[in-house]
Amino acid sequence: MLTTIGFDADDTLWHNETFFRLTQERFAALLADHSDPDHLHDRLLAAERRNLGHYGFGVKGFTLSMIETAIEVSAGQVPASVIGEILAAGREMLEHPVHLLPHARATVTALAAEYRVVLITKGDLMDQERKLAQSGLGDLFDGVEIVSDKTPEVYRAAFARHGTGADQGVMVGNSLKSDVLPMLEAGGWGVHVPHGLTWALERADPPHGHSRFHEMVDLSGLPDLVERLATPHNG
Amino acid sequence: MLTTIGFDADDTLWHNETFFRLTQERFAALLADHSDPDHLHDRLLAAERRNLGHYGFGVKGFTLSMIETAIEVSAGQVPASVIGEILAAGREMLEHPVHLLPHARATVTALAAEYRVVLITKGDLMDQERKLAQSGLGDLFDGVEIVSDKTPEVYRAAFARHGTGADQGVMVGNSLKSDVLPMLEAGGWGVHVPHGLTWALERADPPHGHSRFHEMVDLSGLPDLVERLATPHNG
Repeated sequence: MLTTIGFDADDTLWHNETFFRLTQERFAALLADHSDPDHLHDRLLAAERRNLGHYGFGVKGFTLSMIETAIEVSAGQVPASVIGEILAAGREMLEHPVHLLPHARATVTALAAEYRVVLITKGDLMDQERKLAQSGLGDLFDGVEIVSDKTPEVYRAAFARHGTGADQGVMVGNSLKSDVLPMLEAGGWGVHVPHGLTWALERADPPHGHSRFHEMVDLSGLPDLVERLATPHNG
Repeated sequence: MLTTIGFDADDTLWHNETFFRLTQERFAALLADHSDPDHLHDRLLAAERRNLGHYGFGVKGFTLSMIETAIEVSAGQVPASVIGEILAAGREMLEHPVHLLPHARATVTALAAEYRVVLITKGDLMDQERKLAQSGLGDLFDGVEIVSDKTPEVYRAAFARHGTGADQGVMVGNSLKSDVLPMLEAGGWGVHVPHGLTWALERADPPHGHSRFHEMVDLSGLPDLVERLATPHNG
């Protein structure tokens, strides 16, 4: 039995990491007098990792980590005008238009006709709600969960609440670490749809050989895959 | 019929605004060379209001608004070391221990024995989850909703999801604007338990004379009030 399809949002249904990369390039240009780009990138990643337990995922925490890194790499010499530019870059990320990834609308529409479809995403509440509203996909979903982290427990709860349990669910996303591995651990299927860019803190090894793990190049093949999984002798 | 009690969290079950006020005092001391406290407070409030649609509620957005205000009132002259202090103040808010308000544990415990009890709170996901975990009250709640804003639609959805609809629900909180008025509009009861300190952006006039509006000085009288409301001839 397969009743419920969960979709990750950022870099699964719409572009996200691209905006983070563009902002990091702007950040590197702003700090060019104080740090070379590679060192800056390392220090920013270290700050993001250090702050994850306090800030969680999303643009607000990323902005705060950029500011912290700017002060650190400049040994406290960064001018306030540069901090102001970093604040502006963060606000622009929170305003960027939503660009759907190929096949996102057609795939969610097709699956919503036959299954319960649920959006399960990390990040800042208001920002994720804004992107869903702007995506035009909001009405297709039977449920939306914006969560602080993606663990097996979170998937068990979300698929119990919106479906018939994780073991009758598929989770689709670009992050092996957040979308696939914890869903497999929760007893469900995990479908990895890689995105060209993956944030360093989301990398993980693929669980090759796991009977409930699948990988596809884009979302176009998902309805066929789900139909095969839903037919028990091929599951 | 009355089946479900919703509780606000910050300044209803545990202290919150006190930590914001203490941080604002520290902020005023840090900026003393650039602004008098009253002007600084006005500029910070204006920034918070301006940014609310982007940042939502919570400590991360508050920290970003403090940094923005520091740059503004100093005309770009604030040293990076002061920005670093503001970042540290924000991080400390995200680590402060949870102090329950009087009667919070006893009241939630008593009501949980007879009704569904739900926590409905705004703010940053990870921070609100941390505070609930540290409060020791987590196991008492049948449901937890961390929302980006508190509107009649949000209350209708939350009381439908965790209870039997807003018209059979009571919402209890310290904010007339967020906890009481939208719940009355959703068709439920609203119980105002004022806190000594209320953030300027949460102020509203009480709906005196509304048949489903109640006010109490602290949480100790809530079980008796709920029992009276649940008895139709007194409702």
